[in-house]
Amino acid sequence: MLSFALHTDLYELTMAQVYFKEKKFGKAVFSLFVRKLPPNRNFLVSCGLETLVERIQNFRFTDRELKYLKSLGIFEEDFLDYLESFSFSGDLYAIEEGRVVFQNEPMVQIEAPLIEAQMLETLVINTIHFQTLIASKAVRSFLVSQGKQLIDFGLRRAHGLEAGLYAARASYVAGFAGTSNLEAGLRFGIPVFGTMAHSFVMIYEEEEEAFRAFAKVYPERTILLIDTYDTIEGAKKAIKLMKEGYRVVGVRIDSGDLKTLSKEVRRLFDQEGFNHVKIVVSGGLDEYDIQDLLSSGCPIDAFGVGTKFITSSDSPYLDIAYKLVEYEGKPKYKTSPGKATFPYKRQVIREYEGSLIKKDLVVRYKEGGLVKKIMEKGKLVESLPSLEKIKQTLMEDLKSLPDELKGLQKAHFTVEIID
Amino acid sequence: MLSFALHTDLYELTMAQVYFKEKKFGKAVFSLFVRKLPPNRNFLVSCGLETLVERIQNFRFTDRELKYLKSLGIFEEDFLDYLESFSFSGDLYAIEEGRVVFQNEPMVQIEAPLIEAQMLETLVINTIHFQTLIASKAVRSFLVSQGKQLIDFGLRRAHGLEAGLYAARASYVAGFAGTSNLEAGLRFGIPVFGTMAHSFVMIYEEEEEAFRAFAKVYPERTILLIDTYDTIEGAKKAIKLMKEGYRVVGVRIDSGDLKTLSKEVRRLFDQEGFNHVKIVVSGGLDEYDIQDLLSSGCPIDAFGVGTKFITSSDSPYLDIAYKLVEYEGKPKYKTSPGKATFPYKRQVIREYEGSLIKKDLVVRYKEGGLVKKIMEKGKLVESLPSLEKIKQTLMEDLKSLPDELKGLQKAHFTVEIID
Repeated sequence: MLSFALHTDLYELTMAQVYFKEKKFGKAVFSLFVRKLPPNRNFLVSCGLETLVERIQNFRFTDRELKYLKSLGIFEEDFLDYLESFSFSGDLYAIEEGRVVFQNEPMVQIEAPLIEAQMLETLVINTIHFQTLIASKAVRSFLVSQGKQLIDFGLRRAHGLEAGLYAARASYVAGFAGTSNLEAGLRFGIPVFGTMAHSFVMIYEEEEEAFRAFAKVYPERTILLIDTYDTIEGAKKAIKLMKEGYRVVGVRIDSGDLKTLSKEVRRLFDQEGFNHVKIVVSGGLDEYDIQDLLSSGCPIDAFGVGTKFITSSDSPYLDIAYKLVEYEGKPKYKTSPGKATFPYKRQVIREYEGSLIKKDLVVRYKEGGLVKKIMEKGKLVESLPSLEKIKQTLMEDLKSLPDELKGLQKAHFTVEIID
Repeated sequence: MLSFALHTDLYELTMAQVYFKEKKFGKAVFSLFVRKLPPNRNFLVSCGLETLVERIQNFRFTDRELKYLKSLGIFEEDFLDYLESFSFSGDLYAIEEGRVVFQNEPMVQIEAPLIEAQMLETLVINTIHFQTLIASKAVRSFLVSQGKQLIDFGLRRAHGLEAGLYAARASYVAGFAGTSNLEAGLRFGIPVFGTMAHSFVMIYEEEEEAFRAFAKVYPERTILLIDTYDTIEGAKKAIKLMKEGYRVVGVRIDSGDLKTLSKEVRRLFDQEGFNHVKIVVSGGLDEYDIQDLLSSGCPIDAFGVGTKFITSSDSPYLDIAYKLVEYEGKPKYKTSPGKATFPYKRQVIREYEGSLIKKDLVVRYKEGGLVKKIMEKGKLVESLPSLEKIKQTLMEDLKSLPDELKGLQKAHFTVEIID
């Protein structure tokens, strides 16, 4: 994944060659926005900008790419020479990462020579779409988690290794405490968590023996998986270990009736005075399960959240588009049914009522709104915020979100487009 | 993505360290299988093995990884030294790519020293899960496509760039004619396709001018996107161009009522004698739309298929697991409710009735079934088949699939597990 230039659709380059041949080098503005929120989303969390900037800065056609393009027999020497010297020279406007956004709001706008803005299309959509999708799903679990820890356990069922990596980033922005994904720990400095697998327990003749082996090696971080055979018996074995002097930080329950089991396990620990032992649950959980478990008073301290959030399973894609809105200063829009677009570079003005967001206005661009200039002439205007700062931005934004938008039920928010 | 060793869950390594400390170096067998097919799948297409083998062969802990692991303060020097010298030394058994598979069938089995088999868990699941998921979704479009061309247009909404890349591979295996994804063209030799975007049409003052500019540069491969403003008018402009002497290979319609429009556009072309002009349609299509359009007699020659197949939107994940089934020759299984497993290394025997598959038996391993030995002592037993060969394997397998399993309606197939 070192060079990004061919992670694109062929048509970006065939169109680019026509522009090149026809000397269409005028300035264009393309806008990335979501046309309509999915049924189960009241808002989105903008995410992926830093990744996009890195990729744009490394968007180069090396020999490997040029040789392949030449082999297709579609591209002429002069255009291939142009590609060889390509680097992005335009401006990038964006809504910062970690902001709450809604339909029709320009998350990214590229203002650049037409050919450059066009060639970045696939990369811009792919990068922002995925992280925004995942952050927007993950934040729903966060909003119902009542301050309990959420941990990303999704890597194995993510759509590839890269998806696992950036989903860890997006879910951390969205309030998760950390991830099981070591590469995400290394790359983004996200805290890493882990317990043990059922296979670990099964390797030993006795469950107890497995627990003891683990506790010996990790006296400071032992979380025992207690549901391989019988959860209650597993909890009793954890108690036995603690009575022997082993330290147990927590237990994990990955199957069965989590409501009954978490309460019974808590009771067993508490009656022995082991109030410090945390209960972690996992196993196909989503925001509805988390809300249900916590509102039923289950004494759960942390949730391992995986498959459903990392695939955004109830809405695995967004209706996202990257559309031409301006060329050489003139407005551009199309009129195809259901896909009409709004012309011009845009700003988003957020109106508040007291401390709460009331509505958003999408107006012709001027300074002083959610949209900031991020790159100018191909260079960063200022360095991008840290992941911690992005997370903070979201936490602030969530405070201004009306309660009905924070819930899992569908609620409406007004975005007005003003010409 | 050059090193894969940290694209894993922390617990794989914490468990591995315990095994290392306790000298648990016995031989283990882990099995990868799907517990239950999703509601809208009658079978799966095994896919991703070549990618997995490449990754296993490159599974190394370099300085970058070791330094990070050390920084976590969980791992001791002797274990880190072991990781530094790690390379996979075990055997890998698998069902070849492109085979039709069902629930509970061991797509991959790793037989190796426990610590090695354990450390590969996340990588094995992630790699096989994604490509199998996508091939299994894509083949549904193929089965209802009546020989019309299917082209992968999904990259922009895939879950990252890597997902787009491997989805192109998986959909090609599943009968797609090609992809818009250039990187997939380069890496896998998949044919690449492309037309033009609405933005291209909008750049020009007149739609006709845009068409002409494109046709001039690509006399051999002009496919005009005709729905930016008005599809029928767009088709008439294509006719005008052809009358001027331009060659037009096809037109693409990306919005509106595709049934009415495709028929009307076909009629317009045919009445002018332009019978050779192909009609390509796109825009949020899935297997149900394709079946509906073709069974309504729509004169469509090719489908650009994107978002829904590349996210497997109706079932964005599989209930896949990688489970310990044997250790030091002894059977291993767990008994957690709903997650019980079957012990021992396994073979799949396919029973036929005439030329059609009747049922599958999952038996104790012996040679002579769907499961082959792919790697022995960390090395490939023989070179893996080409992508074309894998596609052929699937095409053969589809011939033996009973009609009810090929349709979009749910149908049942029997897999018997024999002890």
